[in-house]
Amino acid sequence: MKMNQCKIVDCTIRDGGLVNNWDFSVEFVQTLYAGLNKAGVDYMEIGYKNSPKLLKGADQAGPWRFLDDDFLRKVIPQKGTTKLSALVDIGRVDENDILDRKESMLDLIRVACYVKDVDKALQLVQTFHDRGYETTLNIMALSNVMENELIEAFEMIKDSAVDVVYIVDSYGSLDHKDIAFLVEKFQKHLPNKRLGVHAHNNLQLAFSNTLIASEAGVELLDASVYGMGRAAGNCPTELLVSQLKNTTYNLRPVLDVIEQLMIPLREKEEWGYIIPYMVTGALDEHPRSAMALRATEDKDKSGEFYDKLMSPEVTIEKK
Amino acid sequence: MKMNQCKIVDCTIRDGGLVNNWDFSVEFVQTLYAGLNKAGVDYMEIGYKNSPKLLKGADQAGPWRFLDDDFLRKVIPQKGTTKLSALVDIGRVDENDILDRKESMLDLIRVACYVKDVDKALQLVQTFHDRGYETTLNIMALSNVMENELIEAFEMIKDSAVDVVYIVDSYGSLDHKDIAFLVEKFQKHLPNKRLGVHAHNNLQLAFSNTLIASEAGVELLDASVYGMGRAAGNCPTELLVSQLKNTTYNLRPVLDVIEQLMIPLREKEEWGYIIPYMVTGALDEHPRSAMALRATEDKDKSGEFYDKLMSPEVTIEKK
Repeated sequence: MKMNQCKIVDCTIRDGGLVNNWDFSVEFVQTLYAGLNKAGVDYMEIGYKNSPKLLKGADQAGPWRFLDDDFLRKVIPQKGTTKLSALVDIGRVDENDILDRKESMLDLIRVACYVKDVDKALQLVQTFHDRGYETTLNIMALSNVMENELIEAFEMIKDSAVDVVYIVDSYGSLDHKDIAFLVEKFQKHLPNKRLGVHAHNNLQLAFSNTLIASEAGVELLDASVYGMGRAAGNCPTELLVSQLKNTTYNLRPVLDVIEQLMIPLREKEEWGYIIPYMVTGALDEHPRSAMALRATEDKDKSGEFYDKLMSPEVTIEKK
Repeated sequence: MKMNQCKIVDCTIRDGGLVNNWDFSVEFVQTLYAGLNKAGVDYMEIGYKNSPKLLKGADQAGPWRFLDDDFLRKVIPQKGTTKLSALVDIGRVDENDILDRKESMLDLIRVACYVKDVDKALQLVQTFHDRGYETTLNIMALSNVMENELIEAFEMIKDSAVDVVYIVDSYGSLDHKDIAFLVEKFQKHLPNKRLGVHAHNNLQLAFSNTLIASEAGVELLDASVYGMGRAAGNCPTELLVSQLKNTTYNLRPVLDVIEQLMIPLREKEEWGYIIPYMVTGALDEHPRSAMALRATEDKDKSGEFYDKLMSPEVTIEKK
């Protein structure tokens, strides 16, 4: 029996922080880390490593938006087998904040970018690589990328230092055929790179797409406990842990995390399959308009919302 | 461009009635029918055609559990293009209650059974067929059926009068490979029958599985608006309407139905991706134990619940 080569990257704190402005207590993060560690989850993405100097409103966000190594050492005094990951965005990271890996709590640094910024992202990747980190490049919004741009990006990526290249379904608009198409394309053009996938659940396809990517050879699988993540959220960690064949994951500790942390949190914060997010997914759009709607009294008026998105006049007005 | 041959069978009232004991007002059902009609949905399963004489507790259930043609004529005085369907269970239907189709509001009668009762189900099917109805045979709990039983059932079905044979994932435990396997098997053994699929959402795979079945040639696709159905619920009608390629469905009226009927109803009644149902789906079990748990104060204690289901002693005790 061949063991499954996949690795789960739990993004509950990082992507979930987009829901609650990273307002997780230290105890919450510690309990989550302990649970993921017991479950055998491979990576925990514990936040962003962006610089507060380069972002507006930084003082209102929780500490997981601007990870600091001294702080992290207090949060997780004893690391288990679950590695720690952080995400950075192009133009929001100060390279001087990044220690050498041997002095850092972090193992993996991931760089998220749109396809037009792959060159800048790869410069950052090189820096992190030189400091000893595992690296990934997460290309967002692939459903809105034309073939020629993607081929150009592949040319830069294949000669770069990056370890893993991610297929990111930012708008939750891809189905299993789209995923199979992208995986095949990435494999053909980047035969020397491992692949990852980050799915969103706008069309209730996040788990299915992740499963299909995994079966096609994608190794790093992003997920979050109870699907917590911006808007429609992500592929649920508990489903990967429970359903991936030929793995040694353990569901039981994830169930405890859900009961203890996620059910109470979901009472206060909102994410998941909610109709305005379904609409933006169906229309292959960023969920920002739906997020704005959900913050108003008209939050369930998805019919009118759909009409607005479908109206060309309003689309022009938006721009 | 080849048009998609699929037909959506909306089961909101019939399967959703298992959630609220069929406590839908006449106005609710009328509004739903009008919306499905505008959306171009092919069938509305408006309830069960079981006999109240053959069921305990019948007087406490809403009228959609025991459909009566005189009543139906008042509910839907003017039929649109959406056909009406009813489900019957083996041993719970009185054949004397069933009018000839030309005197009835119903177009389609579906017979649900376990594989061991296929012979009895086919006798009922013959009766409905002789009275002029379209018919389906819905074989439940296929994930728990051995190959030899299934082959035996196929032998009976292929010479029967039934129009459509359903693959029913009663426990919501099947993934895309299982669905592809079953569709291929059904197609091979029943080349003269059209196929249907009824999925449950325990593992967030109902929509994905239905899409994959449809692409493999399955024609009748069961769904319900906002996924309403027992336990984890069904494939959401709005996702099929929105995502099936080469069809003429219209999403907008379904969004209105969700806003007007389903969002308020979901405040009072519970269905969908809820962890104890994920657990029974993952373990390929009937959701009844999870439904019992959800009715108690311990409804979110899914860790303990999982331990009980995994313990062989308790399993023996249950039987």
